[in-house]
Amino acid sequence: MTKKSTVKLAPPQVAQVMPRARVQAMKEYHPPLGCRDALRLDFNENTVACSPKVREILGSISAGSITRYPERAPVESIVAAHLGLAPAQVALTNGVDEAIHVLFEAFLEDGDELLLPVPTYTMYEVYASATDARVIAVQAADDLQFPFERLLAAITPRTKIIAIANPNSPSGSVATRAQLLEIASRAPHAVLLVDEAYFHFHGETIVDLIGAIPNLMMARTFSKAYGLAGLRLGLLAGPVDLMRWVKRVLSPYSVNSLALACLPPALADTAYLDWYVAEVLAARAEFEAALDDAGVHRWPSRANFVLVEIGAQHKEFTRLMSAAGVLVRDRSADPGCDGRVRITIGTREQMRQAAGALNEVLATLKITGGAQ
Amino acid sequence: MTKKSTVKLAPPQVAQVMPRARVQAMKEYHPPLGCRDALRLDFNENTVACSPKVREILGSISAGSITRYPERAPVESIVAAHLGLAPAQVALTNGVDEAIHVLFEAFLEDGDELLLPVPTYTMYEVYASATDARVIAVQAADDLQFPFERLLAAITPRTKIIAIANPNSPSGSVATRAQLLEIASRAPHAVLLVDEAYFHFHGETIVDLIGAIPNLMMARTFSKAYGLAGLRLGLLAGPVDLMRWVKRVLSPYSVNSLALACLPPALADTAYLDWYVAEVLAARAEFEAALDDAGVHRWPSRANFVLVEIGAQHKEFTRLMSAAGVLVRDRSADPGCDGRVRITIGTREQMRQAAGALNEVLATLKITGGAQ
Repeated sequence: MTKKSTVKLAPPQVAQVMPRARVQAMKEYHPPLGCRDALRLDFNENTVACSPKVREILGSISAGSITRYPERAPVESIVAAHLGLAPAQVALTNGVDEAIHVLFEAFLEDGDELLLPVPTYTMYEVYASATDARVIAVQAADDLQFPFERLLAAITPRTKIIAIANPNSPSGSVATRAQLLEIASRAPHAVLLVDEAYFHFHGETIVDLIGAIPNLMMARTFSKAYGLAGLRLGLLAGPVDLMRWVKRVLSPYSVNSLALACLPPALADTAYLDWYVAEVLAARAEFEAALDDAGVHRWPSRANFVLVEIGAQHKEFTRLMSAAGVLVRDRSADPGCDGRVRITIGTREQMRQAAGALNEVLATLKITGGAQ
Repeated sequence: MTKKSTVKLAPPQVAQVMPRARVQAMKEYHPPLGCRDALRLDFNENTVACSPKVREILGSISAGSITRYPERAPVESIVAAHLGLAPAQVALTNGVDEAIHVLFEAFLEDGDELLLPVPTYTMYEVYASATDARVIAVQAADDLQFPFERLLAAITPRTKIIAIANPNSPSGSVATRAQLLEIASRAPHAVLLVDEAYFHFHGETIVDLIGAIPNLMMARTFSKAYGLAGLRLGLLAGPVDLMRWVKRVLSPYSVNSLALACLPPALADTAYLDWYVAEVLAARAEFEAALDDAGVHRWPSRANFVLVEIGAQHKEFTRLMSAAGVLVRDRSADPGCDGRVRITIGTREQMRQAAGALNEVLATLKITGGAQ
C-alpha cells in the first residue's frame, strides 16, 4: 500500500484553460429547483395549470413535426398583433432570461454601465456580470419603493442600459408611467428596459409607447400568469432600430416548437387568464389580511407574491414552512432584504392553506405577532 | 409603426443607442425556414419522425406540470449515464447552438483566437463574432478533407478554442481520432471542441476521452438522428474543471420541460434510432450511386447529407429542385463552396424521389452529366 504522502503526481503537462476574467468573477446562480412536490409558493409561477387549450394542442403534435427546426416568425406575428406591435418590433425568446442575456450581450461594452435599482430580479446581475460592463446598483430605501430620484441621479454618460422590473421582485413595488417616461428622456443615450413579467397582476403597461420612444424596450414572460414556465417563453419588444441588433445575437431557433405551438391557444384563451388573475388578486387581498392579523410586516405588492418580514429566524421559517408542505423563498441574500421571505400568491384555497401553515410556524418559532 | 402615441416626442437630442462595435460588424444569419412543406433535404434533419415513444410521452404531460420551471438535473444524470460520463461533465443546452454560444461567451476574451477549419457549421463564426476574439479560418483544400497540417500550423499562444465539427458540414469529411488527439496535445492552452452532431452516421466518437484529456470537450445534438430538432436539445460535455465555467454562463432554465420529458424515451428507444441510421446509410449508398450515374461530382460523406458540385447554375438548380418538391441547400456562400449544394439523406424511398427530381432538373438545366 502506498502512503498518501508518497504519492507522486506527474507534473501537470499543460496549463489549465481558463475562462474570461469576468466569467471567473461571476456570481453562480443555483435556484433551489429540486424536490418541489408541495404547494409551490417559491418561484412566482402560476400555481394551478396553464389553459386547458394548451394541453389540448400538445395532444395534436405529430412525431413528424418534431423533426423540424422551429419556425418562430408566424408565432411572432400573432404575438405582435396581440400586443398591437409590428412583427419587427418583437422577438420571442427562450424565456425572458434569454431576452435579458441577448440584450445585454448586444449592447454592454467595456466601460458601459448597467443601472439597476435593487433589490430586483437576480438574472440582470448574472447576465451583466458576463459582459465587460459595470453594474451600478441603486439601493431602494427600507420601504423598498422604486428609488426614482436616486436612479435619476445615478445616470451618467456611461449609462448604457437601465433595467427596471415593473412590478419589481421581490418587493412587489412599481414605478409609475410618468417616472419611466422621465427616466427614458433623461437617459436618451441608454436603453430603458421595462420588464413587465408581472404585468397581468398590475394592469399597467408601457407597451403602447414601444416604437414611439426611441430608447424604450419591454420584456414580458409567459411563465407567470399564463402558467407556461416549463415552456420557456419570453418576449422582447422595442423600436426596430434596436431590435435588429438584438436579433443578430439571438439564435433563430432558440424557441422550441412545442412552445411555439402552445402560445397561440394560450393567448386566445383570455377567459382562463382573466379567471386566474382575478383569483390571485382576491387571494392576495385575503392573504395580506391574514398577514396583518398575524402581525407580520409586509410590503405592498402589485404582483402575484408578497414580501414579508420574518427577521433573524428566516432560514428556520423557510425550512418549517417547507416541512409543512408550503415552499416559500428566503430573499435574505438580496440587497437590503435580510430576514425577508417572498411568498407567491396562488388561489384563495391555496393561500388559506399557506396562512394556516404560516401561523403554525410563527407560533412554533415564537415570532412576535404569530398565531395567538 | 403600428402605434399611435399621445406622447409628443422632442426632436432627437442625442445619438441613437448603438450596440457593441462587434455586434455592429456581426454577420446576420437568416436560415431559409419558411414554406418547408416539401421533402426536407435542406437542414440535415431526420426526414421521417422521432421515436413514437416520444410522441406518447407528450400525451401524458399534465397542464399542471407545464406551470413549473424546468428541472434539468435529473435528465442530465440520465444522459450522462447513457454516455458513460458523470453528471458534472455534462450540460444539456437549448440546442447545440446554446452550447456553442455559452462556451464561446465563457472562454473567448479580447486578444484570443478561435481556430476554425472552414467550410464548417455557420454558427461557430456567428457566435464568435459576438465575442471580442478573432476568428482564424483555416481553409480546406478543394477536396474538402480535414486540413490537419494547416490547422496544426495555425495554432498560436493566442489560440483559445479550436472548433471541429466531426463529421463536418457541409463537406461530410472527418478528422481521425489520432488527428484530434494530436491537436489537443499541441494546443494544451486551448479548448478543443469536437462537435459530434452527426456522430450516429459516422460511428466514431471521442466521448470516451472526456475527462481524460484536460482540454477536450464534445458537443452533441438530438436534432439529427434522433429527430428532435423542434425540441432544441443539445449537449456539451467536458472535464468538470471546464464545465463549471460554462455552467456559470448557462441559464439554469434554458431547456424546456417538454424537451426534458421527451429525452429519456428517445434515448431508450435504441431500436428506432438504429433503424433510422441504417436506413439513412443504405439510402446514402444508393443516392451516391445515383449521383455517380448522373455524372455529378460529390464529396465522400460520413454524415446524413452529401455535398454535390452543381456549378454556375446552383441558384437555379436549388430553385427548380424546390419547385419539384425537394428542398436542398445551396452552400455557395460557404468559403470554398461556390457552386456546391448540400443534399440531406433521408430514407431510400425519399432519396429515389430526390434522385428523380435531380435528374430532371439537371436535364432541364443541360448540366453536363445530367439525366441521359
